[in-house]
Order: sequence, then C-alpha cells, then structure tokens
Amino acid sequence: MTPDPRLDLLLERVVDVPPELVWAAWTQPEHVKRWFTPAPWTTVDCEIDLRPGGIFRTVMRSPGGQEFPHEGCYLEIVENRKLVWTVALAPGYRPASEQSDTLSCTAIIFTAIIALEPQGSGTKYSALAMHRDEAGRKRHEEMGFHEGWGKALDQLVAYTKEM
Amino acid sequence: MTPDPRLDLLLERVVDVPPELVWAAWTQPEHVKRWFTPAPWTTVDCEIDLRPGGIFRTVMRSPGGQEFPHEGCYLEIVENRKLVWTVALAPGYRPASEQSDTLSCTAIIFTAIIALEPQGSGTKYSALAMHRDEAGRKRHEEMGFHEGWGKALDQLVAYTKEM
Repeated sequence: MTPDPRLDLLLERVVDVPPELVWAAWTQPEHVKRWFTPAPWTTVDCEIDLRPGGIFRTVMRSPGGQEFPHEGCYLEIVENRKLVWTVALAPGYRPASEQSDTLSCTAIIFTAIIALEPQGSGTKYSALAMHRDEAGRKRHEEMGFHEGWGKALDQLVAYTKEM
Repeated sequence: MTPDPRLDLLLERVVDVPPELVWAAWTQPEHVKRWFTPAPWTTVDCEIDLRPGGIFRTVMRSPGGQEFPHEGCYLEIVENRKLVWTVALAPGYRPASEQSDTLSCTAIIFTAIIALEPQGSGTKYSALAMHRDEAGRKRHEEMGFHEGWGKALDQLVAYTKEM
C-alpha cells in the first residue's frame, strides 16, 4: 500500500478501539448503518456478502429524503486487517456499467483499501481511495473526502464504544 | 458461473489435455507467448504476477508489425481450476484509466473467468467474458470472440501436447 498523491486520497489515524471492533463495524450491515454516512445524512440500507466477488451495497439518504444507492464488489478480505472493494466492478466481478446508479450519481470511480493494524489497545486505521486519473481524485477531494471519511470514522469510534 | 446471454460470451469445450497443462499454459509467460494470439498475430511479450491484484500483461503484434498492449489485474487464482482477471482494473486494483492503451485500442472492457474441470484424462474448458453492457458484448462478438478464442484454444492444445 504505497499511495500515489496524484491519484489517491488517504485518511490515516490512530483510534482507541481494537481492530476487531473496527472490522465488525465495517463488515456487518446492522453496524454499517449506524456510522457509515456523516450526519445529517443516514445509511438506510446495507447489503454485505463478505467474500471476493461479493456485494457491498449501501443506500445513503440525504436530509431532504433523496436516496443514493452505491454498489461495489469486494476484492480482498483479511479478517481484522484488510478490506478491499471497488465500484469499478459490480458484484461477481462484472465491469460496472457507466449507466449504473452508483456511477451516475457520484461520477467517482474508486477502489478502497481499509487497513487495520493493532497499536497498543487501539488501531492504526488507514483508508485509501484509489482513482483512475487525477480528475477523479480531485473530484473526490472537492466533494469532501477528508471531512466526510473523517467524520464517518468519528461516528464509527463513538458507535463501537457503545457496542 | 451462470452466464447472462445478454452480457456474456462463453466458449466451452472438452480438450484432451489435463487441467494441469492448461493451467501451466495460461499462467507462465513463456508458455502464453506460444499460443495466446491467433496466428498470424503473435504475442511478443507477457508479464504475469499470479496473485489477486497482480498484473496480467500481454503485447500482441499484428502481421503488419503494429503492437497492442493489454494490461489486466488478476482477481482470483485457484490452481488448476479457476483463473479470473479483469481489464476494468489496473494492477493493484486501481480502476483502469479510459485513456490507457488497453482500453483505447480495444474499447472492450471485460472480466474473464477461465474454469477447468478434469474430464477423463482431459479437461472441460470454459472461458467466460463478462461485459458491462450489451453494446460491449456485441462489439466483442463482432470482433470475433468465438473464432479468436477458439483458435487460440486450438493453439494451446497443440502446444501443450508438445510440452
């Protein structure tokens, strides 16, 4: 995992919950729905088939009630350590249609790598978003990648402490 | 592996060489160069990093001497049984750039699943190409998928019998 600053966005932080809880929060739909979308947006649906080629689907709802489905495909799953998925492929590895809801509403195509390393009683958390070109990286950055993924991580930490 | 006739192209055949030889032919560059491209085209270079996220790169040369590089990313590797790669992702899982050589010279984006099953002393061979939409499937079909992949398989069988 060697980020390319021209193409990638990276959120790195040490959080005071262990990797096992961060992993659970990322891989079980009932947990994902509780933290995944920065408030006041909400995650109203989530589907997870945790195997390479399996589906990772979320539906985000705006404060105004509009829903945004996103569908991705898991690529690598290393329990408690590493989770990789992409929206460039649909579940089952089929190349994603440019006409799909996922691509049309965001126009941001990326592969995500979530890496977890134990650090004391907490976790060194890395979230990498890899884009196909510089324009994609810039769009994602301007949409508020750092603020959005950072706020979602705050929510994940607060939620897992109550689990 | 349940093909969708609207989106997928499938070549299925029983060949009289065992899965282990077919696997070797598909996964070692020195072998790939001997059969991969229907004559009179040739495969002049091949790079393989046989792990999920690893590179599968070939360079085809036309009879007139023009070279066509193709770069894909392996997704699943089950020795002697199943090989999955896609050109929708670059090596390392990054979404492939639409400006890449691979995509610009073929305009065909697909994920391939090669499945091998022992049958007697031979192999039930299935090659599935999954496209993102019907237009992609049609373009690939019109370019001669069945003839091309069929002729390459003939070459693979002839070559492995001399290995």
